[in-house]
Amino acid sequence: MLFKVEMTVNIPSSLPAAQAEEIKAKEKAYSQQLQREGKWLHIWRVVGQYANVSLFDVKDNQELHEILTGLPLFPYMEISVQPLCQHPSSIYVEKQ
Amino acid sequence: MLFKVEMTVNIPSSLPAAQAEEIKAKEKAYSQQLQREGKWLHIWRVVGQYANVSLFDVKDNQELHEILTGLPLFPYMEISVQPLCQHPSSIYVEKQ
Amino acid sequence: MLFKVEMTVNIPSSLPAAQAEEIKAKEKAYSQQLQREGKWLHIWRVVGQYANVSLFDVKDNQELHEILTGLPLFPYMEISVQPLCQHPSSIYVEKQ
Amino acid sequence: MLFKVEMTVNIPSSLPAAQAEEIKAKEKAYSQQLQREGKWLHIWRVVGQYANVSLFDVKDNQELHEILTGLPLFPYMEISVQPLCQHPSSIYVEKQ
Amino acid sequence: MLFKVEMTVNIPSSLPAAQAEEIKAKEKAYSQQLQREGKWLHIWRVVGQYANVSLFDVKDNQELHEILTGLPLFPYMEISVQPLCQHPSSIYVEKQ
Amino acid sequence: MLFKVEMTVNIPSSLPAAQAEEIKAKEKAYSQQLQREGKWLHIWRVVGQYANVSLFDVKDNQELHEILTGLPLFPYMEISVQPLCQHPSSIYVEKQ
Amino acid sequence: MLFKVEMTVNIPSSLPAAQAEEIKAKEKAYSQQLQREGKWLHIWRVVGQYANVSLFDVKDNQELHEILTGLPLFPYMEISVQPLCQHPSSIYVEKQ
Amino acid sequence: MLFKVEMTVNIPSSLPAAQAEEIKAKEKAYSQQLQREGKWLHIWRVVGQYANVSLFDVKDNQELHEILTGLPLFPYMEISVQPLCQHPSSIYVEKQ
Amino acid sequence: MLFKVEMTVNIPSSLPAAQAEEIKAKEKAYSQQLQREGKWLHIWRVVGQYANVSLFDVKDNQELHEILTGLPLFPYMEISVQPLCQHPSSIYVEKQ
Amino acid sequence: MLFKVEMTVNIPSSLPAAQAEEIKAKEKAYSQQLQREGKWLHIWRVVGQYANVSLFDVKDNQELHEILTGLPLFPYMEISVQPLCQHPSSIYVEKQ
Repeated sequence: MLFKVEMTVNIPSSLPAAQAEEIKAKEKAYSQQLQREGKWLHIWRVVGQYANVSLFDVKDNQELHEILTGLPLFPYMEISVQPLCQHPSSIYVEKQ
Repeated sequence: MLFKVEMTVNIPSSLPAAQAEEIKAKEKAYSQQLQREGKWLHIWRVVGQYANVSLFDVKDNQELHEILTGLPLFPYMEISVQPLCQHPSSIYVEKQ
Repeated sequence: MLFKVEMTVNIPSSLPAAQAEEIKAKEKAYSQQLQREGKWLHIWRVVGQYANVSLFDVKDNQELHEILTGLPLFPYMEISVQPLCQHPSSIYVEKQ
Repeated sequence: MLFKVEMTVNIPSSLPAAQAEEIKAKEKAYSQQLQREGKWLHIWRVVGQYANVSLFDVKDNQELHEILTGLPLFPYMEISVQPLCQHPSSIYVEKQ
Repeated sequence: MLFKVEMTVNIPSSLPAAQAEEIKAKEKAYSQQLQREGKWLHIWRVVGQYANVSLFDVKDNQELHEILTGLPLFPYMEISVQPLCQHPSSIYVEKQ
Repeated sequence: MLFKVEMTVNIPSSLPAAQAEEIKAKEKAYSQQLQREGKWLHIWRVVGQYANVSLFDVKDNQELHEILTGLPLFPYMEISVQPLCQHPSSIYVEKQ
Repeated sequence: MLFKVEMTVNIPSSLPAAQAEEIKAKEKAYSQQLQREGKWLHIWRVVGQYANVSLFDVKDNQELHEILTGLPLFPYMEISVQPLCQHPSSIYVEKQ
Repeated sequence: MLFKVEMTVNIPSSLPAAQAEEIKAKEKAYSQQLQREGKWLHIWRVVGQYANVSLFDVKDNQELHEILTGLPLFPYMEISVQPLCQHPSSIYVEKQ
Repeated sequence: MLFKVEMTVNIPSSLPAAQAEEIKAKEKAYSQQLQREGKWLHIWRVVGQYANVSLFDVKDNQELHEILTGLPLFPYMEISVQPLCQHPSSIYVEKQ
Repeated sequence: MLFKVEMTVNIPSSLPAAQAEEIKAKEKAYSQQLQREGKWLHIWRVVGQYANVSLFDVKDNQELHEILTGLPLFPYMEISVQPLCQHPSSIYVEKQ
């Protein structure tokens, strides 16, 4: 099942820089692992923002929730989730 | 260059049904032609809405504007455009 | 999979009353059929509004989209969809 | 009487982790006690958010207010309340 | 039980003036009957608006919904409902 | 002259608890004094919120401003003010 | 008593031009009469809008409501009202 | 040239009281000097808010910007600026 | 004096196409005349919208208002105006 | 390619003044270097705000993102980006 997820990151200035870098490194590894598993289909940077637009392909709502709350940057993110499905004009067959 | 485009369709009830169907058929053909040309990379239906989330890969802003204003449903759409670029965590190399 | 869906109905005054009544009768039958099938788990009226709050339990996003766009009142509704899942404090086990 | 209540939790980073865990444990016990008493009918997690959608069945407005302000996490929550009632299309008879 | 209700009236210019006057006369009679019954405790005009702020004292949510949807002007109103209860600083005892 | 005033309280967690309690006690006494003087006609608690809906009957705008800015909790409040007047459907004669 | 009032005019295209001109002429005469009486202290045009910012000095809320609902353009206006009073830094003494 | 300016003050609780008082005293002197020079035509207090509505008569945009950013309270203010001009119904001739 | 002006055009479907084309032709001539006079410094199309972002250099607020309300498409436009001035980092000297 | 970018600066009061001045000096040099390179075409101050409206002419989305996230004040800015293109009424030929 497909979901568009938009994430905006707000790291508080009170977080020590070294700790922030460590969390970002974990975030990158976590994201790339899910990309390799085919669950995080796309991740694009929003121009001029510390934010991304992503596409997820998951088994169900529960799995998406666990992936998102497992993000190392989750405590510092605003997240919005939008369920998507096959568009009748698409020339591709999306996974359901 | 990549852009996320969100389109919401509002066809007024005053438009005759036959004319609406003709416009929708043209819209589908127009969209599929651009998908085949590799300019309209993705189109997903938003669940519960007469709306879509799309990804475009175009040469420049001007080309995107011409594609969008050329949509047969353009007069009946609300459109929002967001420029995207490569995300440092992506395992893929996006086109610029 | 569980989704909260909120629907607000705006029937234009230009719709003949008899036609409006016919659509509403179809809407009721359609809703009750889905309730009996166990897909439309709850429907509550919002106090003071021509609107409802509903819970759906569907196989996937695609099924929810088909149910919602099949509503006889769909052309006259504003709809918002929110994916839900098991809450760790719930004493019940929700369907995924 | 039925109410939809939406709660979003924002625990400040200045709250010591041990204290936060203690409050969350109390919150869970408090919620489950009210679920067993039949006052907190449903609690669902919102996908991707530290938030829930809940249904309450209470005697009156005053009781709902006391339940909500008694939540151990109340000082860290944004809460919205919406009164609901029987929907004419529902195949169930809701409590008033 | 107490509820604050705010109502804003938008009568479309397409409604014949005589019919509008008839509906307004029915609205006034309907409102005054409920005031005399002690269910519509207060109604104030909002300065510079075709709108009111009202207080209702009803048995339950269902009764409030029936009163509001029974308003002769209901099809032309935007309505918002807010449940209220006793304030600890009030020197009066409100009805629950 | 009548005004609806809505107040929402946000006491920062940095305020010592004893000081917060002292301010709340002063607030209650201040409010009850104005209620006894007939200037603060009503105060209702908003269900699920640290907020109230109030009605004031004051000589003029200046008096209302002085009452509101004199609230012991004023520095911690968001306040909105709406001027009201006699509604033609009211069966009561409001003070001007 | 002083009030800032902001008015935005939306004359529907269905109103015959002659009738619109007649209403605007009445509006101008009505406004100028109130300016001469010292009740409508100021009226400024908002640059680029069919809108104004105005200052009123009235006896009470009721008088302001009657003035505003008596505007010939009232059925075509959005109006917002904000009560004002003496500012401690003003070198002038405002009427209360 | 005329501008409506609305200013809302938010002094953080971390600012020492003596320093806040000093800034407010400077603000008052600064405002009164500009009023005497005929540049700050009006300043009104918004009822129930630490905010004002003001009218400025300045030579050009640059002068208005310098006046506003020179306010001793500028770092603690939210400011909105709206250009105004002569209204055709005004019985006065405004300065351009 | 510099102003950023944003214009969004909404031509109602009830306007006959020939009349709409005539208004658009007049709009173009009007805009180009003002560009040649050096008053309309820039006009850019917003990608995917029937809208523009413009820069004006005018003598005063009054002149800007007359230019904008003289636009042949003015009755079909939403317009927002923002006064600008010299930025201290600019390597150019803007006209005041 | 042209983009309108709006930037609003919020420097937290916790940042030492000397450090803030150093960042602002770097920001100015960075901005002027990009202006000289012809990438940052315009920068205007918004009247009454610590904010600017800017025009950028860049090779692609990626370059714009790198320029914006490289701003010394980036961590303290809210940024909005709007892609622009040639307007058919413009008497100039914009770069694509």
